[in-house]
Amino acid sequence: MTSHSAPSSTESGAPPGRHWRGYVFLGMSVDGLIARNDGDLGWLTSRGEAAGDAGYTPFMAQIDHLVVGRTTYETVRAFESWPYEGKQVLVLSRSLDDGADPRVRVLRSLDDAVAALDHAPAHHVYVDGGRTIASFLGAGLIDDLTLTRVPVLIGDGVTPFGALPHDADLLHLSTEVLPGGLVQSRYRVVR
Amino acid sequence: MTSHSAPSSTESGAPPGRHWRGYVFLGMSVDGLIARNDGDLGWLTSRGEAAGDAGYTPFMAQIDHLVVGRTTYETVRAFESWPYEGKQVLVLSRSLDDGADPRVRVLRSLDDAVAALDHAPAHHVYVDGGRTIASFLGAGLIDDLTLTRVPVLIGDGVTPFGALPHDADLLHLSTEVLPGGLVQSRYRVVR
Repeated sequence: MTSHSAPSSTESGAPPGRHWRGYVFLGMSVDGLIARNDGDLGWLTSRGEAAGDAGYTPFMAQIDHLVVGRTTYETVRAFESWPYEGKQVLVLSRSLDDGADPRVRVLRSLDDAVAALDHAPAHHVYVDGGRTIASFLGAGLIDDLTLTRVPVLIGDGVTPFGALPHDADLLHLSTEVLPGGLVQSRYRVVR
Repeated sequence: MTSHSAPSSTESGAPPGRHWRGYVFLGMSVDGLIARNDGDLGWLTSRGEAAGDAGYTPFMAQIDHLVVGRTTYETVRAFESWPYEGKQVLVLSRSLDDGADPRVRVLRSLDDAVAALDHAPAHHVYVDGGRTIASFLGAGLIDDLTLTRVPVLIGDGVTPFGALPHDADLLHLSTEVLPGGLVQSRYRVVR
């Protein structure tokens, strides 16, 4: 295992024109998938156990706002306890009823979500869910990615990435091998 | 009882029913793409320079046979010098003329290529090219993967992975951070 880190001086700053940073924190298969097509995550959670929470707790400690899509919201809503206690949660959905759940705020479009984050004001925004991550990436609203590769190829499923208006150049910050053969890399989006 | 020494590690042994191992050695973007849709590799080669050949020379030294698709063959054929000197090269293609190039042997199907490798006999087989890798993976003919992630998201392009008849469980062997922020991980397919 080799691991090294870049200096963290610019890490906490927001990019020009925004006072918040967008964060992605994903577990994925080596073939780059974050869920099977039916939403199943068993292949991920079973292999992830050895690595504990793989840095999720300290990552979440810095987060004040989340933006998730409808699918992620429905998944999380079914959990025994609400995992986003104390965070502002925006759900990006055209169909979810406004006020259906007092723990979240429903936004109809990416522009509306960005306006809400700008107004909040938000500082550290965790963006989650395949299509939501892809839209934020495409709009240049993601600044940091933590990607944890679980040692399996599942062949078919949901990708968090998609077409981009232009390449997103990344700065490699660190890579760590976690128990169970998970490989966790952190990148910063270079502008 | 015949006397023979056991292999020093399982790494050098062939899987049951085959006397050759299939190897993948890929440079890819962080979003898992190996080329743009038009075949462009500039995003990869420009960022890869800092890492030298990223272990390609020692990797190739052990290879006796290659299997590539038509697209990879055409790309390589355009190089100033033939990079596969001294190796047996099989091209998987329905359309390429048999005997068009004395440096390669054209095979019409995966089954024909496997029969040729079995007969050769081959030992260390480098499988390259998006669709060719996907077919070999799907048929359970890949044993080792070396994946080098170049720090960029390109959004759209060619993936070497695709639907699989079942999950391919991987054993993480090593991860190294190379100059330029490239992250190289080696995996063995577990059977």
